[in-house]
Amino acid sequence: MPEAHHTVLRSASKEVVLGHDRPFVLIGERINPTGRRIFQEQLRAGDMSAIERDVKAQVEGGADVLDVNMGVPLTDEADLLARAITMVQGLTDLPICIDSSVVEALEAGLAAYQGRALVNSITAEDDRMAEILPLVKKYDAAVVALPNDADEIPMEPDKRMELVAKIVRVATTEYGIALEDIVIDPLAMPIGADTGNAVATLETMRRIRDEYGLNMTCGGSNVSFGMPGRHTIGATFLPIAMAHGLTSAIMDTRTPQIVEAMKAADLLLNRDEWGMNWIAAHRAKQAAAAAT
Amino acid sequence: MPEAHHTVLRSASKEVVLGHDRPFVLIGERINPTGRRIFQEQLRAGDMSAIERDVKAQVEGGADVLDVNMGVPLTDEADLLARAITMVQGLTDLPICIDSSVVEALEAGLAAYQGRALVNSITAEDDRMAEILPLVKKYDAAVVALPNDADEIPMEPDKRMELVAKIVRVATTEYGIALEDIVIDPLAMPIGADTGNAVATLETMRRIRDEYGLNMTCGGSNVSFGMPGRHTIGATFLPIAMAHGLTSAIMDTRTPQIVEAMKAADLLLNRDEWGMNWIAAHRAKQAAAAAT
Repeated sequence: MPEAHHTVLRSASKEVVLGHDRPFVLIGERINPTGRRIFQEQLRAGDMSAIERDVKAQVEGGADVLDVNMGVPLTDEADLLARAITMVQGLTDLPICIDSSVVEALEAGLAAYQGRALVNSITAEDDRMAEILPLVKKYDAAVVALPNDADEIPMEPDKRMELVAKIVRVATTEYGIALEDIVIDPLAMPIGADTGNAVATLETMRRIRDEYGLNMTCGGSNVSFGMPGRHTIGATFLPIAMAHGLTSAIMDTRTPQIVEAMKAADLLLNRDEWGMNWIAAHRAKQAAAAAT
Repeated sequence: MPEAHHTVLRSASKEVVLGHDRPFVLIGERINPTGRRIFQEQLRAGDMSAIERDVKAQVEGGADVLDVNMGVPLTDEADLLARAITMVQGLTDLPICIDSSVVEALEAGLAAYQGRALVNSITAEDDRMAEILPLVKKYDAAVVALPNDADEIPMEPDKRMELVAKIVRVATTEYGIALEDIVIDPLAMPIGADTGNAVATLETMRRIRDEYGLNMTCGGSNVSFGMPGRHTIGATFLPIAMAHGLTSAIMDTRTPQIVEAMKAADLLLNRDEWGMNWIAAHRAKQAAAAAT
């Protein structure tokens, strides 16, 4: 077994650590206009008030880190993302995952950010790595890396592991990124497309943990896409994935069923000393129920 | 990896198979007067009507097998268990897990039972095996075996595996029990007593699967004993345990949160072809909601 790495993220005043011996890290994903027409129109008109509401909801839901994406077509995404990050940092002390497919936006976001960010994301494509990894290095950030390339999103664990090996080799030797700052997203694909998909993803996770000790994240709702009962599927998949090495997920924390399942998984996998977090959360819930 | 065994249970008309490539088997546990004073008094007075209600509730909750225990102090448990089994077989076609600490009661239950039963349980103690395994063989049943002996319930996976090895050796070579008819209960201990307990149990399960390919069961609520939020802990533990080799659990099926989590785990671990069971259950739930 390799060393189990710790990925350190920071805001100006708060530190969050991803690790195989640490509580699971919830990356709140809602600060993102993708698929939200009204939010997009507001952002185009310069109205950023929805961000305040979304930040509040994700923080209240239990987010440890916030994913911020400002991918609105026909806007200056770099400017918008930089302003959104400054705004979010005024609203909360949680570290931020800076999320964009546009390199200029990632750079503007990193320049505006106070702390140590997580950059979302690179793939195993050479040009993506060449554009983004120098920024990750320059701004002393960590980076989410997806094991796919221009040709395909491979389903077989062996092929995904080949791309993980490429990412690790290129990032560490060509761009000087530390192993602990590489967070693999092993690409959880929908179970509805092929009922073998989750098993393949779990096997990939286990191998990434056992062969590299790297931290991992994944989209918490991808697996259940297109199926009924999505919350139950998510609340069942993520604990199993955690037992295979997943150390964080990018998810909407407004789903208590999933958030509570991850806290139970922390307890069961011995990452909640004396069960203090579990018991404290239960007492807070009781107090909230008594207050209403 | 050894062959993954199939444990075949039958009533007069229905077969249920435990296996690492099969859907998880829910063994409904409520037909048991332990800790239920009124039920005990009724049974002592010859009133068995509560059994009818309990069977109905466990079947409606989704039980695949029913655990029947008639351990009432100061009664003829052998007679009571035999009559209860005949009664339950008149109410449902589910196979039965015959549950007693009294050897004579197990024998009377096996003699009354129509089909292929699961006997609950033996330990690694020589006298327990000597008393019960000849009955298991005579009545062509399967047996639940707990890796503890008179001295202790060991917590270390290595010690539990030593007792599993002893059970397997004695049962197969001295009493002619087939490997596929040994169902190990790896002794899930409460997380509240030691937050390392679940990890030790999961490691034991993984080794029993990988080294022997045996089927396993466990008490579905043991892990959460003494903690708040027990249903969420159970609904999180059992799917993780299933990914480590657990193929059945003895549990109260009146908890939809846990039953649904196990159906989601079947889907995610590719034991629900095309997701047919998951989708059918969702439709039935929708139809039931529409009807009320």
